[in-house]
Amino acid sequence: MSLARVHNFSVSLDGFGTGEGPSQDAPFGHAGERLHEWMFATRWWHETAGGSGGSGGLDDAFVRQFTPGIGAEIMGAGKFGYPGWHENPDWKGWWGPNPPFHTPTFILTHHPRPSIQMEGGTTFHFLDVSPAQALETAREAANGQDVRIGGGPSLLRDFLAAGLVDHMHVAVVPILLGRGVRLWDGLQDLEKDYEVEAASSPGGVVHVTFTRPGL
Amino acid sequence: MSLARVHNFSVSLDGFGTGEGPSQDAPFGHAGERLHEWMFATRWWHETAGGSGGSGGLDDAFVRQFTPGIGAEIMGAGKFGYPGWHENPDWKGWWGPNPPFHTPTFILTHHPRPSIQMEGGTTFHFLDVSPAQALETAREAANGQDVRIGGGPSLLRDFLAAGLVDHMHVAVVPILLGRGVRLWDGLQDLEKDYEVEAASSPGGVVHVTFTRPGL
Repeated sequence: MSLARVHNFSVSLDGFGTGEGPSQDAPFGHAGERLHEWMFATRWWHETAGGSGGSGGLDDAFVRQFTPGIGAEIMGAGKFGYPGWHENPDWKGWWGPNPPFHTPTFILTHHPRPSIQMEGGTTFHFLDVSPAQALETAREAANGQDVRIGGGPSLLRDFLAAGLVDHMHVAVVPILLGRGVRLWDGLQDLEKDYEVEAASSPGGVVHVTFTRPGL
Repeated sequence: MSLARVHNFSVSLDGFGTGEGPSQDAPFGHAGERLHEWMFATRWWHETAGGSGGSGGLDDAFVRQFTPGIGAEIMGAGKFGYPGWHENPDWKGWWGPNPPFHTPTFILTHHPRPSIQMEGGTTFHFLDVSPAQALETAREAANGQDVRIGGGPSLLRDFLAAGLVDHMHVAVVPILLGRGVRLWDGLQDLEKDYEVEAASSPGGVVHVTFTRPGL
């Protein structure tokens, strides 16, 4: 069975998945990288960057689930680029020539363009379809493996509201951003469809997992 | 030093401190008692109700901090009664003849009335003043002990925004209420004034504490 999984999605204690005012210079707006510092501190992150060191505990155990078993990713237009990237024909995402996805990666956008093959196995495909249609397409591309729902917060909220997510890992970071894009809006009673577990890390983050019963 | 302390303040994962539509029959609106079930399950709660049993672990350790060292409470009008209670001259709060405060208890309201002496040491005083003025009055009444900031969410937010809270314990309950009164609105960067710690309980709740450095 091919699952739709979310990993390492970080929100502030007040529920913002990204800050206000994203731009080409500030992908997360006024939040900067404060939602993701816990991730940068892990061994997995250091290794992925070709280095060594980093923490090997609970945070590391969670971040390492990002890659295994994933055959495709779906992301929103707001994750792929800054507001207005669709007017820039040369834009290929934030991640340089070898993006960290290494699978077919589907971008939901009202401005589709031809696919872009990157190094390392990532191919960007652009779709103007519903979340359910995107998941069907990504599942075919994933060849029986799971599909990662990559965010940002608006896209993830849409997938949750449509009941399309099987497993979700959210990292609650103990900061108050005050403004930005909320993850949890409009998802009343979401927990009733999942087994929910919370694990606080010595690093300060709380890992909350939503797992569909019976998976 | 007399501190302003918050204990056992429960919010949903999406940040609501109470539900929508409170009434005389439903003090927390559509949330019912779902934000407080973790507390009812503790030994402390069972004991306070004159019974026995209940969990004796992390949740219990946190709830027991409610009483010791507290010499007065401040609460908002929305905690004291249902919307419109001020038009009911017989209203004396939700808690029966012997409320669980056992100290002078100050209600912030635009409709003050004469003080009401209850059994067990609780006296309700009604003030139409600012948070800072209320704290000053409550501190005098507390005779050198601490003052508990009792909520609801609007009152607590006002005290936090005014920088008046020294120690805060929030219990994040893994449910999504979707609507109600938010605690965290307008408190950007609050964590910068505190040491913040999070502890997940096997019962499912995450205890988040904000402590002013140097206390």
